[in-house]
This record gives sequence, C-alpha cells and structure tokens, in this order.
Amino acid sequence: MPVRALVFDVFGTLVDWRSTVAEAFRASGVAGDPGELAIEWRERFWPVIAEVNKGERPWANFDELHQATLDELLAERGVELPVEERHRLVGAWHRLDPWPDSREGLEALRRGRVTAALSNGHVALLVDLARHGDLCFDALISAELVEQYKPVRQVYETAARLLGAEPAELMLVAAHPADLWGARNAGLRTAFVDRPLEYGPGSPPREDPEADESVADLHELAERLAD
Amino acid sequence: MPVRALVFDVFGTLVDWRSTVAEAFRASGVAGDPGELAIEWRERFWPVIAEVNKGERPWANFDELHQATLDELLAERGVELPVEERHRLVGAWHRLDPWPDSREGLEALRRGRVTAALSNGHVALLVDLARHGDLCFDALISAELVEQYKPVRQVYETAARLLGAEPAELMLVAAHPADLWGARNAGLRTAFVDRPLEYGPGSPPREDPEADESVADLHELAERLAD
Repeated sequence: MPVRALVFDVFGTLVDWRSTVAEAFRASGVAGDPGELAIEWRERFWPVIAEVNKGERPWANFDELHQATLDELLAERGVELPVEERHRLVGAWHRLDPWPDSREGLEALRRGRVTAALSNGHVALLVDLARHGDLCFDALISAELVEQYKPVRQVYETAARLLGAEPAELMLVAAHPADLWGARNAGLRTAFVDRPLEYGPGSPPREDPEADESVADLHELAERLAD
Repeated sequence: MPVRALVFDVFGTLVDWRSTVAEAFRASGVAGDPGELAIEWRERFWPVIAEVNKGERPWANFDELHQATLDELLAERGVELPVEERHRLVGAWHRLDPWPDSREGLEALRRGRVTAALSNGHVALLVDLARHGDLCFDALISAELVEQYKPVRQVYETAARLLGAEPAELMLVAAHPADLWGARNAGLRTAFVDRPLEYGPGSPPREDPEADESVADLHELAERLAD
C-alpha cells in the first residue's frame, strides 16, 4: 500500500519549543536556568495528559494545561509572578520557531503527498504556529477533535478517517518514540526524525528501530520517499 | 469587536462546481443538457442534507450523498451507467476549479487574518479541492466534525471554538443567503460575495441585505476589510 498522506507531530518534531520558551523565561525574570525551566515545564505536561486520557481530569487544551502546569512549577519554586506575565509565558508556545529544515522540507513533501499536522496541540494553537513559521499543511488535525491525547489510538484513527485513507496509507513523522509507537499501534506507518537539540545541547540520543524510516531531517525523508 | 478570522463557504463561493460537473456529464455520455444535469444533481442535495439534519437519515459525507443522489437522478431518467462511470462523476466534485479571484483573493485576505474553510464538504474532499485549486487556508473546518450540515448552528459555533474566537469575531464569506442566515443565527458576522455564474449564465440574481458586507469578489472584500 502506498503512503498517501504524511501526518506530522508538531512540538519538538517541526518546531523547537525549548528555545522560545527559555527566552520567555529569561524575559520574565524567573530565577533559574531558563533552558532548564523550559524543560521542567514541558516534562510536567506528560502526567497531566495521562490524567486526561485516563478520564481523571476533564478535557483541557494546551493553553489550559500549560497554565496549570506553570502555576504548579512556580508555586513549588515559591515564585510570585503577575497573571499577565503568566499569560505571556503561556503565549510563548504560540510563537515557536520551526527547525531549520521544517518549512522547506514540508513544502517538498507536500508536492508528492497530502500533508497534515497531527498534533496534541489545539487547532487555534496550530494555526498560530503554522502562520508564525510559515508552515504549509493541507489540513490541521488535532487531538482536540476527539478530546483524547496521543498516543491514544483514536487520535491516529481519526486522522486516517478525516483524510479518507486507511491507517496503513498514513505515515506519522515524529521525533518521539512514544508517538511513533502509538501510530504503529493504530496501523500507521512511521518515520523517525532525529531532533538532537530538542532538549538543548547534550540531549540524550533517541532512536526508533521499529520505524519504517529514520532520518536526520525532512529533506532526507523527501529523498527517501521519492525513491 | 474586530474580525479575527474569515471562514469561507467553498462550493459555489470559492469554486465553480457547475462547469466541472457539467463537463463530467458531457464526458459520461448521459443524455440531456450537461449544465442542467449538473444543476439538477446539485438541487437534489438540499433535501438529503435536510434529512441528515433532522435525524431522518444517518450521517453521510458528500461522496456518499453525491453517489445516492446521482443514482436517484439516473434512475428517474432511466439511464444505465456502469459503476465506474458513476464513481468518475462523483469524483468530479474533487476537481472543481476556483473562481478567477479565489486564489489570489484568499491570499490577500490571509495576510491580515486567519482564514479557514467552513464547508459542508468532508475534510478529504476539501483537501483535494484546496490542492487542485492551490487555495491556501490556515485550517479546514468541516460539517463532518460535528456530523450536522450548515445552516445548523452547531457547525458555525464549532468553527469559532476551534479557532479560539468568539462567534462575533468570525465572519462567514458565502454566496448563499441561507448559509449567511445560519452564520448570523450563530452570532457570526457575514459577507455576501456575488457569484452570478454559479448556476450558469442567466442565474437568478441574489443578494443579502442583512450581510455586513456585500462584494463582487474577494479582492473587493480585501479592500473593504483593509479600511
């Protein structure tokens, strides 16, 4: 079965969340290493998402969850920060820059196949990121549409249904083995793209031996899929 | 409240369904005036959509409803047509050309505001039309997401929710008074764009005195909204 559509994880895979969020922490004056604060904030996200998926927490979008996890982070560190400053930090997630290859790589891949975002971010956030980074997708598909977060199977199945394709005709492109696992679990094909700077210089190396493709960037993926 | 996002009806407003569908009828060899056949097929759509909205018919997407209404049309005319020919006719709705101003007009409007399709067509069909006509949207929002067809209020409200805006911050751009009525009923602002050739030369004139804007094409809308 040919790959008819490529679906892309966004945070970490197409855009670099750490640099912009670190910069926003720097500007906020919160004490501590800005890069470490960004990573701590990001890491607080996973257990919260798991609570939503288990039904222990009502559905909430990225803005709402970023707000809640930021409040926790600041409270534990005993940091007082005005509400406008907190909103500015949450807003930083709407202004993330793409990795250097993302824009042109997406364009090249889109020439041959349908390309869609398949992100846990809500639609309005994805719109802002795509406009900010000039990223061109044929469609934005969000976990928001089913109110369950990846790697829940239903999110990937929804992408296939909305794109009018079988799961096996979709390929998820992502930098995160858990996401790629979720996609395979739903019957999608998978491409691992290495983003060695996602957690800054010295990030632990990642790989996904199960992925159909493993590439250094989107240009390499375009070459592989052109074969 | 400023207009933060423009949402666009697609069939008839951005793309000319009649010409391509008529051409497909011509190629199929079905007896009768191809333009009239196209219009008759289109007109059969409205009662079927109303049945879905009233819960008298299970949800079905445009491909499925086009198939059903084509079968009816051909049966009433006593026309035999092989299934592959019927599929080709249904597929013609995926290859509709934009009106001459649609592509560049959308681009101009997108510079200043978020632009999204807000169509009764399903996502996969909208993807094909946008790619075919090189129409650039920030997002595709479809009645498919709520399994109710415009002018049901929930469809417009879903657009506002997904775009992270209040209904009054959205403006629907459409050539059809019923759609514009539905949008206003949900609290959206409205722009009527005249498409005098939608039903071919000699189409009955349309207007919408209730619309916030009434324009001849998307370029005029871009000028109006730039004021």
